[in-house]
Amino acid sequence: MAVYTDVSDEDIARFVAEYDIGKVVSFKGIAEGVENTNFLLHTDQAPFILTLYEKRVDPDDLPFFLGLMDHLSSKGLNCPTPIHGTDGVALRRLCGRPAAITSFLQGMSPRRVLPHHCAGLGNALAKLHIAGQDFDYYRPNALSVKAWRPLFDSCGNDGANDVMPGLGDMIRGELDFLEANWPAKLPAGVIHADLFTDNVFFFPGQDDVSGLIDFYFACNDVLAYDVAICLNAWCFEPDNSFNITKAQNLLANYNRARPLSADEIAALPILARGSALRFLLTRLYDWINTPQGALVTPKNPREYINKLRFHQKVRSAGDYGFGDR
Amino acid sequence: MAVYTDVSDEDIARFVAEYDIGKVVSFKGIAEGVENTNFLLHTDQAPFILTLYEKRVDPDDLPFFLGLMDHLSSKGLNCPTPIHGTDGVALRRLCGRPAAITSFLQGMSPRRVLPHHCAGLGNALAKLHIAGQDFDYYRPNALSVKAWRPLFDSCGNDGANDVMPGLGDMIRGELDFLEANWPAKLPAGVIHADLFTDNVFFFPGQDDVSGLIDFYFACNDVLAYDVAICLNAWCFEPDNSFNITKAQNLLANYNRARPLSADEIAALPILARGSALRFLLTRLYDWINTPQGALVTPKNPREYINKLRFHQKVRSAGDYGFGDR
Repeated sequence: MAVYTDVSDEDIARFVAEYDIGKVVSFKGIAEGVENTNFLLHTDQAPFILTLYEKRVDPDDLPFFLGLMDHLSSKGLNCPTPIHGTDGVALRRLCGRPAAITSFLQGMSPRRVLPHHCAGLGNALAKLHIAGQDFDYYRPNALSVKAWRPLFDSCGNDGANDVMPGLGDMIRGELDFLEANWPAKLPAGVIHADLFTDNVFFFPGQDDVSGLIDFYFACNDVLAYDVAICLNAWCFEPDNSFNITKAQNLLANYNRARPLSADEIAALPILARGSALRFLLTRLYDWINTPQGALVTPKNPREYINKLRFHQKVRSAGDYGFGDR
Repeated sequence: MAVYTDVSDEDIARFVAEYDIGKVVSFKGIAEGVENTNFLLHTDQAPFILTLYEKRVDPDDLPFFLGLMDHLSSKGLNCPTPIHGTDGVALRRLCGRPAAITSFLQGMSPRRVLPHHCAGLGNALAKLHIAGQDFDYYRPNALSVKAWRPLFDSCGNDGANDVMPGLGDMIRGELDFLEANWPAKLPAGVIHADLFTDNVFFFPGQDDVSGLIDFYFACNDVLAYDVAICLNAWCFEPDNSFNITKAQNLLANYNRARPLSADEIAALPILARGSALRFLLTRLYDWINTPQGALVTPKNPREYINKLRFHQKVRSAGDYGFGDR
């Protein structure tokens, strides 16, 4: 959470005047989004989110992200809808940065994940994958299997071993395995690729997801890889134990809305290993490269070492509770 | 700006159920308020601000602060209005901390202060002082002249000299002067005591203040001391030069709504010196005592060394442009 760029009251008034959304009456930096600066903007018509895209987002990718949100919204998916200026343009510039206003999405991310959240998540993820099928743009996954070895090399063996003795060897062994066995031909399409709890909204006490946010890692890749990311992000307890009830709920509800093929089911364990390694590596990179006193505290990579170890012992999707009912 | 305490979606839903303000549909940590944690809370009825009081606020002072906001609101002043629970109680507890919900105030603090802002500020400050006259509670100013020497002693001479060689002697000399000459009998009442630009809202392009926030330093003290705080906080340019047009606007508009007495006018230079020293000392204290990597970066005390030097050369309120028109 951070506000990297401050926007003056004059700048925001001028910027909002380029839209047909009323006059700005309030805007406040919010503690949401790690990569970008987000403001909650109230006009005399409605609340909106204003995002300034900071340096970790490639400006060339923004038309894909905003176009995807436009597409998904038009399909009835609850996600931020880019607001277009009076000239029709959604992606603009503010304070020297690419910037966009999107609709304000009601709901709250669950601070403590309960099994019913995973049921709603499974359903919403499947609907996202279905809605994305006829999106015309293409963005390869810059953080998929091919990217992992260079990412590890940039961390260095010593950097890994500083976090945990032997981690370098563990990662190298895992890379060898994943590169040799990564599934080739699974159903693919647009994936969210970062569907952590922060990015999924619910109304208190309700099962259904009220909305999905933060599509700034979205890309084209194997759909079941998104499921594997959610297994890692949603189905482990804070003590790193695996909660099979949550996984059952996630997989059963995903499968009900978008039935998984036999190949996808068989690939789940290796996709989960890959997903665990991907977040282990990016966290390791940030852990090593974040200067002291930075606005954002890097996440500890250790959590994903434990998750990777868990998946290394999994033999089939049945170990995740798939098909139990 | 910081979110010190995270509140779960379940906790917030339970908490909001103790009020008659509808159901929570969104809440987001906001980058507003240095001392406390603030959330922008949307219910299906309206937006509100939820504040969790962190350790720098004395819980025993909270009835004063909330009572003051209630009082000022009832007098028609635009400030956050404490929302009372269905049991009539405004000050409650959440996540182990004192907590309160207040109304959401429209408007924005000016990032770049223009002369017209200072005109609106002078008027709003005078109205605040008038509205506070019949507030029944009393809270002494814990950061007034008597508190400054102990505060300096806790920083230590070396701590001061680390910031600027000779600063220790400068502060000691100033303390001697202020303690000997501090005005004794000036009109007193409730002052805001922290009316920096962050705490004053305007609508873009409008002169009038749309609201005042953050009453968590409010106390009983000399009213003109609040004017002196604003001279320091609003009338210097980023390069530390004094903008006499801003000061003229501030003083003339204050004086129009609440005429300053001859004693108050004569005391303005020493009150401005005192106010500059007060912020110099608290910033010095924070500068020395904030651990590396803290959520909030301490403000540099140097800005207030320069302001203090300026006021030391001022001979009368005329040097601030008072009475120029």
